[in-house]
Amino acid sequence: MKLKEIIAAVEPTDKDTFAKAQERTAHLIMPTRALGRLNDIGEKLCAIQRTMKPTVDKRMVFVMAGDHGIVEEKVAAYPQEVTGQMLGAFIAGLASINVLSKQANSKVLVADIGAACDVNATPADPDSFYVVRKVRKGTANFTKGPAMTREEAEKAIMAGFEIADEKIKEFGLNMIATGDMGIGNTTPSSAIGSVYTGVPVEAMTGYGTGIDQEGFKRKVSVIKKGIEVNKPDKADALDVLSKVGGLEIGAIAGVILAGAYHKIPVLIDGIISTAGALIAYGLCPLAAEYMVSGHRSVEQGHIKMLEYMGLEPLVDLGLRLGEGTGAVMAMHSVDAGVRVITQISTFEEAGVAGKEN
Amino acid sequence: MKLKEIIAAVEPTDKDTFAKAQERTAHLIMPTRALGRLNDIGEKLCAIQRTMKPTVDKRMVFVMAGDHGIVEEKVAAYPQEVTGQMLGAFIAGLASINVLSKQANSKVLVADIGAACDVNATPADPDSFYVVRKVRKGTANFTKGPAMTREEAEKAIMAGFEIADEKIKEFGLNMIATGDMGIGNTTPSSAIGSVYTGVPVEAMTGYGTGIDQEGFKRKVSVIKKGIEVNKPDKADALDVLSKVGGLEIGAIAGVILAGAYHKIPVLIDGIISTAGALIAYGLCPLAAEYMVSGHRSVEQGHIKMLEYMGLEPLVDLGLRLGEGTGAVMAMHSVDAGVRVITQISTFEEAGVAGKEN
Repeated sequence: MKLKEIIAAVEPTDKDTFAKAQERTAHLIMPTRALGRLNDIGEKLCAIQRTMKPTVDKRMVFVMAGDHGIVEEKVAAYPQEVTGQMLGAFIAGLASINVLSKQANSKVLVADIGAACDVNATPADPDSFYVVRKVRKGTANFTKGPAMTREEAEKAIMAGFEIADEKIKEFGLNMIATGDMGIGNTTPSSAIGSVYTGVPVEAMTGYGTGIDQEGFKRKVSVIKKGIEVNKPDKADALDVLSKVGGLEIGAIAGVILAGAYHKIPVLIDGIISTAGALIAYGLCPLAAEYMVSGHRSVEQGHIKMLEYMGLEPLVDLGLRLGEGTGAVMAMHSVDAGVRVITQISTFEEAGVAGKEN
Repeated sequence: MKLKEIIAAVEPTDKDTFAKAQERTAHLIMPTRALGRLNDIGEKLCAIQRTMKPTVDKRMVFVMAGDHGIVEEKVAAYPQEVTGQMLGAFIAGLASINVLSKQANSKVLVADIGAACDVNATPADPDSFYVVRKVRKGTANFTKGPAMTREEAEKAIMAGFEIADEKIKEFGLNMIATGDMGIGNTTPSSAIGSVYTGVPVEAMTGYGTGIDQEGFKRKVSVIKKGIEVNKPDKADALDVLSKVGGLEIGAIAGVILAGAYHKIPVLIDGIISTAGALIAYGLCPLAAEYMVSGHRSVEQGHIKMLEYMGLEPLVDLGLRLGEGTGAVMAMHSVDAGVRVITQISTFEEAGVAGKEN
């Protein structure tokens, strides 16, 4: 399947089912919409899955990994070899995403889309998967030219799509999530965020994994230079991704397109996943109807990227880790929303009196 | 056991274990404290349970019910008989708290501490419990004198304590939560909130289950009158509870004291549960160390009551239902926090490089 065909095949979510779901919410045995966001998310799931009985019991988080030439500019607090080491930790089941996915009954797939090193390892348990679909060994330093070619950008997106498409079919997944690993990847993410939203780089940039004030200033000037040198065209998502993006960011966009294509919800993690979501949205605005923002990251630019797509985060726990942790935490809320609309009785069913007057 | 003995027996949480937990968090395979509130809550659980391996797998939410004479003043959007009808729905497993508790693997106990009517029913499943410990049939209208006598206030607290104490021992519960049912009960809750925090009644009062603007004004003036007529003494929690409180609010305070007494975390729901928490805090300030604020309610006064006790809510989903729903939703976050500190590897364990410089 070609990228163009995928984009053309994405349909809007089902507005009729959405209206029926809102009608049911209005009769649930509670003051009107007293479960707030849980009411909203339950209705959205009905619209996405085109049924009054949505299910979200078959789950997988797709953790896409890639390296970044931009680390030459000293924008990251950790050395580049940590990308490969963390990949190893994910595959061995030792990291945050493994622990939180297990809690959320979610399988974990880790994919090397563009790590600088090669990791050979076998997953520790049957709910973990490791896939190598390396497009290239890290991007180029985007202050000196594009991060990758247009062909590589498309390949990264297609790698993400194909990986997710295969697993969605294999396991009948009905809720997926995105995650990331890549030292330096908040830098291209803020660049993408600034290009799309028009928010100044200073307000779109954060401290990543923990750079200092001087590092922050360097990061801002590096992003500005990258945008100046490459002049990414926001009307052309492949152009943006190739010029100031990342390989794992492209793959995340592909995973999101796979969710939209298969009509299942895609939980978006923090700023890196949301940069991938902007690319998916740029390619295919309808994809946003399938997105659920998992959490609000500590990174200041994140919320502005979400607002640009009309998304509101579910969880706010002060997370700034990535890996997909915020998206996986939000699975509990989506599950709750689905249970609220499918399992709670109406006033009529329960024989309880309604509001006076 | 007498109330005074319980209060005297509550011990502070374990500061040494807390320090050890913070030390472990600093070495977990992530940028420092990158899981934010999940790191915090994991450490708090270590301190509460006095172990580096806290467990939160045996859970129960205690839903305390009572009626309120103050509904004579038209402060509620629903008729009083809804309290009994909702009790019936809880016992039959039809309501929000049942559905969300099942998701969170939590048992549900419903107790009639002061409903105006009598509900005879048998729980629908083995994880549901119904207890009648009625102190009196609803409180009196507190604009005309105290809501209840001092003896009744103490009885309500002891009922809550004894109910929870029994179940904690019977099932070895290691995480409990509070919930409420009682038409009109945001009115005494706001009154208690205003008495303790000193925040003006206008800023401590909300729209409850959905009164209109006129109803809001009436509610404010009713609360002001109640405080004026009764002059509750904030240095004496039994005085506050008896004068402007509620029977279920007293029982909630008792449930919280039982958690503190048994050194297990108590998840506090919205404004009514938090009014109960203020009473528990007034009786025994150390009890606050065992409280975990479940969620931030839509009710404007709620956050001010939490701040008074130094608590910060975990979940913010726009809930305004009560029943314990926000507390039960937060169980997922507490569980996550415990898994983070007990299951994620350290950099050393995983063989991953730390931060540069």
